[in-house]
Amino acid sequence: MITSTDSALLARLSFNQMTADPWSLEEAVRQCEKNHVPWIAPWRHKLDDVHKAAALIRNAGLQVSSLCRGGWFSAPTPEERRQRIADNRVAIEQAAILGRPVLVLVNGPAHGQTLDDARATVLDGIAEVIPDAEKAGVTLGIEPLHPMYAADRSVVVTLKQANDMAKQLESSAAGVVIDAFHVWWDPEVYTEIERARGHIAGFHVSDWSVPLPGILMGRSMMGDGVIELRRLRTAVEAAGYTGPIEVEIFNDEIWAAADDTLIPRIQQAFLDHV
Amino acid sequence: MITSTDSALLARLSFNQMTADPWSLEEAVRQCEKNHVPWIAPWRHKLDDVHKAAALIRNAGLQVSSLCRGGWFSAPTPEERRQRIADNRVAIEQAAILGRPVLVLVNGPAHGQTLDDARATVLDGIAEVIPDAEKAGVTLGIEPLHPMYAADRSVVVTLKQANDMAKQLESSAAGVVIDAFHVWWDPEVYTEIERARGHIAGFHVSDWSVPLPGILMGRSMMGDGVIELRRLRTAVEAAGYTGPIEVEIFNDEIWAAADDTLIPRIQQAFLDHV
Repeated sequence: MITSTDSALLARLSFNQMTADPWSLEEAVRQCEKNHVPWIAPWRHKLDDVHKAAALIRNAGLQVSSLCRGGWFSAPTPEERRQRIADNRVAIEQAAILGRPVLVLVNGPAHGQTLDDARATVLDGIAEVIPDAEKAGVTLGIEPLHPMYAADRSVVVTLKQANDMAKQLESSAAGVVIDAFHVWWDPEVYTEIERARGHIAGFHVSDWSVPLPGILMGRSMMGDGVIELRRLRTAVEAAGYTGPIEVEIFNDEIWAAADDTLIPRIQQAFLDHV
Repeated sequence: MITSTDSALLARLSFNQMTADPWSLEEAVRQCEKNHVPWIAPWRHKLDDVHKAAALIRNAGLQVSSLCRGGWFSAPTPEERRQRIADNRVAIEQAAILGRPVLVLVNGPAHGQTLDDARATVLDGIAEVIPDAEKAGVTLGIEPLHPMYAADRSVVVTLKQANDMAKQLESSAAGVVIDAFHVWWDPEVYTEIERARGHIAGFHVSDWSVPLPGILMGRSMMGDGVIELRRLRTAVEAAGYTGPIEVEIFNDEIWAAADDTLIPRIQQAFLDHV
């Protein structure tokens, strides 16, 4: 039986498109619409035509919670850095067309630089596109990734670091995205969630099962792992965030078995564990 | 050509036994002796008879830098916790027999407890055996593990956390072990190395290659990855630590190819990159 509390929670569920990589955007939208999932989070590499995608999503009665992804600022050469800045400007425009969801920033590895230099480059890169984001009304969500991705995906690895960056940027367009899989282990996470008050731009859920199925494809369905998801959600809400909650699971088995049962399973796990 | 600076550095090299899992302790000692490696770090599960091991090591002119491992305090039941405490007392006695090296503490996962409860259990466990360590003259080295091991090996995941614990324990027998592989990604690592001044009980090196070969067996030879090893060593020395530096690499290829060339290769990589 679905209670009114359940309904209120389900009304915040967003389906991150990479949870079912084999689905086209059309199929993902159809599955969300059929199951009354009100939010969706598309990925840029799966958008053929952003205007058509925006219409498709809007016509199904869905809203976009976030667009993945901008960032990747820490390029090794000035020329590549300029390309990355340009690409982030395109991403901001795409987000504007999709209804101004959060643009999630995955900030990239050190690419042979020292960690300090790479981190400075990332902050510079975000600062450079912040005026574009402000003008477009798009929030940039700095997402700290789990430290196991520090070498190949993100030199931003803790919520403290993301909070520090968001505060330094001093812009209403600078926020942080809190993904449970990336931050659950951190002894400072509850302190930092409170410190993120006023600039929390998103909350993502999945789970960490033991043993971990893999490094990149290591995420599990909520409830299949050890993350204290409800405690994290409660903390994020206590810090003032009441927006959409994205389910973002990269898992080979879930991808291989993605069918009509997937979204109902996600909804149940979401109610039971988030 | 080996310079006097090189010699001084090589005199601090310790061979952690798990770098060549296929070798018996006899073989590891023989290889160290032959190559003038002055320190060794045996693992408890490879010690048959600790008195014989101590004699073997001593007779080869080697010293023990650390014994791996104690810890694993966060057991789910009171009975199991008592067993863990008892096991740590045995480990302290073994360390005393081996010449009072550091006993490395790997603190264990949450075992179904909340992270907060598990972390409290770990601190209680260490506090319970601290008097035994003091009496034996053995330092307990609290080792933070990389956050990717938070679910299955250690709820202690940052140097800040280990430092906080060491300070709370208020004992000369409480220290921290800084393993580059576990801490290199941390934006706070240099602040925390300085904060560890006076209680640094060990420094371990290996490398983080990209892509990572695996989660448990993911370590590489120094120089084959992205860790800023020299910067870390310099920081650890600036914080007052001038003791042995352990080479601890878990890597299937290195294990499979462990032969007479291994220790010379380690020595060269140590000189070039640490």
